[in-house]
Amino acid sequence: MRDVAVIGVGMIPFGRRDQDTLMDMLAYASMKALDDAGLGDKGVDALYVGNMGAGILQHQSSIASALVDRLSLLPAAAEAIENGPASGGSAVKNGVLAVASGYYDVVLVAGGEKMREVTGWRATDFVATMTHPEVEYPYGITLPGMAGMFTRLYMEKYGLTREMLVEVAIKNQKMGALNPYAHVEMMITKEGIYESPHSVVNNPPAADPLHLYDACPVSDGAAALVLCPLEMAAKLTKNVPVLVAGFGQATDTHTLQERDDPTDLKAVTLAAQQAFERAKLKPEDIHVAELHDAFTVLEIAESEHVGFFKKGEGGKAVLAGKTRLGGKLPINVSGGLKARGHPVGATGVAQVVDIVWQLRHELPEDRQVKNAQNGLTVNFGGFGNNVVCFILRRVEQ
Amino acid sequence: MRDVAVIGVGMIPFGRRDQDTLMDMLAYASMKALDDAGLGDKGVDALYVGNMGAGILQHQSSIASALVDRLSLLPAAAEAIENGPASGGSAVKNGVLAVASGYYDVVLVAGGEKMREVTGWRATDFVATMTHPEVEYPYGITLPGMAGMFTRLYMEKYGLTREMLVEVAIKNQKMGALNPYAHVEMMITKEGIYESPHSVVNNPPAADPLHLYDACPVSDGAAALVLCPLEMAAKLTKNVPVLVAGFGQATDTHTLQERDDPTDLKAVTLAAQQAFERAKLKPEDIHVAELHDAFTVLEIAESEHVGFFKKGEGGKAVLAGKTRLGGKLPINVSGGLKARGHPVGATGVAQVVDIVWQLRHELPEDRQVKNAQNGLTVNFGGFGNNVVCFILRRVEQ
Repeated sequence: MRDVAVIGVGMIPFGRRDQDTLMDMLAYASMKALDDAGLGDKGVDALYVGNMGAGILQHQSSIASALVDRLSLLPAAAEAIENGPASGGSAVKNGVLAVASGYYDVVLVAGGEKMREVTGWRATDFVATMTHPEVEYPYGITLPGMAGMFTRLYMEKYGLTREMLVEVAIKNQKMGALNPYAHVEMMITKEGIYESPHSVVNNPPAADPLHLYDACPVSDGAAALVLCPLEMAAKLTKNVPVLVAGFGQATDTHTLQERDDPTDLKAVTLAAQQAFERAKLKPEDIHVAELHDAFTVLEIAESEHVGFFKKGEGGKAVLAGKTRLGGKLPINVSGGLKARGHPVGATGVAQVVDIVWQLRHELPEDRQVKNAQNGLTVNFGGFGNNVVCFILRRVEQ
Repeated sequence: MRDVAVIGVGMIPFGRRDQDTLMDMLAYASMKALDDAGLGDKGVDALYVGNMGAGILQHQSSIASALVDRLSLLPAAAEAIENGPASGGSAVKNGVLAVASGYYDVVLVAGGEKMREVTGWRATDFVATMTHPEVEYPYGITLPGMAGMFTRLYMEKYGLTREMLVEVAIKNQKMGALNPYAHVEMMITKEGIYESPHSVVNNPPAADPLHLYDACPVSDGAAALVLCPLEMAAKLTKNVPVLVAGFGQATDTHTLQERDDPTDLKAVTLAAQQAFERAKLKPEDIHVAELHDAFTVLEIAESEHVGFFKKGEGGKAVLAGKTRLGGKLPINVSGGLKARGHPVGATGVAQVVDIVWQLRHELPEDRQVKNAQNGLTVNFGGFGNNVVCFILRRVEQ
């Protein structure tokens, strides 16, 4: 089994990209990643595309072959990976396995989604395709609905408060406003949310106890990265290589109702345990993390399930500023899904791209975690039914 | 890189399966494969699902997680692979890489499609989602249309005749009639096709020069297999292990019109070359093959492009009986896509399953290639824009 490194990364600004097709976005992000790696004449052996909705939203299949052709990477092997909102993380994982196996040397992974083609109930309907088709969606449950119920239970069991959730939203939108790739450019304040006469209008309840600002936006976007064996990195690129030190992936029951304790995100715990074990690291060794905050509550819950904080302590850590830039463990310095946006197939790739920038120490001062050596990502599919976790490590040359 | 073996296989009868959901079919085939492997208490580490149309046809995503739960294989890692009609082959490939890498020991691969939910133009429309969304489908080209034009060019360049195509249809429907898993149970004869007063009615032109009997049916179906490191096979199963001796995968231009010579299926040639190189075998070492005869012409063209026959000789070989059971190189003894059926995501997996049965010498006499040691499959995506080829070898114990 070979060690695998990320040697090139690229992203396009998330948001509304009405002028671009899905294929345009995947191609732009891929070209940026290839350009960043600076491979020169060295070709790409295989391509993985992380995407959830091309069939449903674009009425298109075989998108990986189409992307290979678009990028003039023929005859590279190619396939698309569908794994709900964890499609991006799954695509990265399969790219890592492909290189680790020794079959392929240079692998491109691109994740993308064009979601703004549908809005309102159609967007909610698209997302709900990831629920159980017989016992969940037909009874009216949607992802925001699940998140609302999860939040209520988390509040009852662990003392989570609305104030903690609001603080996550404020933190992530503040960072998003600094990130040129983020969808949401607007900063919000506690005063604005609580004391404005328009607060109920501006931030109305969405799925009680979650409000509008607790949810990520519906975004278009794409991100890409280039993988190769660590031993080849120095020959192929001038970038500081970032080692995929470990990864983990686990599934949980497809329906929330079948879980013994619905507040227990078992797949997050297991995926993180696997990743830490392979990386031979512990939660306290992580310097920066990108968690899957499709809803504010998930950032807090995941920060506890991966082992950064004890159960019930994650929300307090947010209030104490521990997860801000400059805090003990900055989380979602990119703005997270909450502000960078959540084009589902892109997210898992974008998270790794953001951590790579952190570990290469290439971000401007107002977004760089000083001297970050190890980073972690959590990409959360369904309502935690399929979770992919990566641990990345800067390789000093 | 570890050697990988197929230690369990399963399939359900292809055809109209109105009573089953996609998830039912994937689960049934998976349970058969797991039962065949006889793993006992040993769990499954990861699951790959080959599927093209769950989003479009079933309005469903995250099907791999759903299948893990349905099969009680939690917390196995899982993702779905979309690669058009090569989705099944791609899923097997990624399962092989996952085991070869050393990350996972026991991997389940299931391929399935429920296509009969749509018929007529909607079925053609579904298949056309694999074409180029801007320069092909909007101008009216469909897959049968492409196959018709390809056939005309092949006739002009290589002397292919309608008689050769009919012979493929007769051969494959004859074998399909013997195969309990095949969709098409009806045998056809040359006399019936050419001399019946109803021949034009029974076998009307579909996409000139192709007629109805030149095309595979629209089928529901699923197939599955279990992979593990060859070195563990003896401990895990009583079955004769079948080694994945080699595989290859290559892409070609997404649009047919961009190819220098549209009769040259470059991706088939390249994928086969890669597979033979890895397997350290030559075309003459293969004893049985499953080729992707979505149209009769493709069986002949692929048999030439993988190197079994010279260009222009494949059709003659069919007429001479060389590709029949009992001939020098039996092709599509299962009945092929033409008769077994072509539930797109299932096909690439089903091909490997059929070859495994051949190499384990488990088929009844009227379908068994005597003493077959090496087999080959070609899974053909789009119109040859993404091709996956496997070479399998019986491992004597």
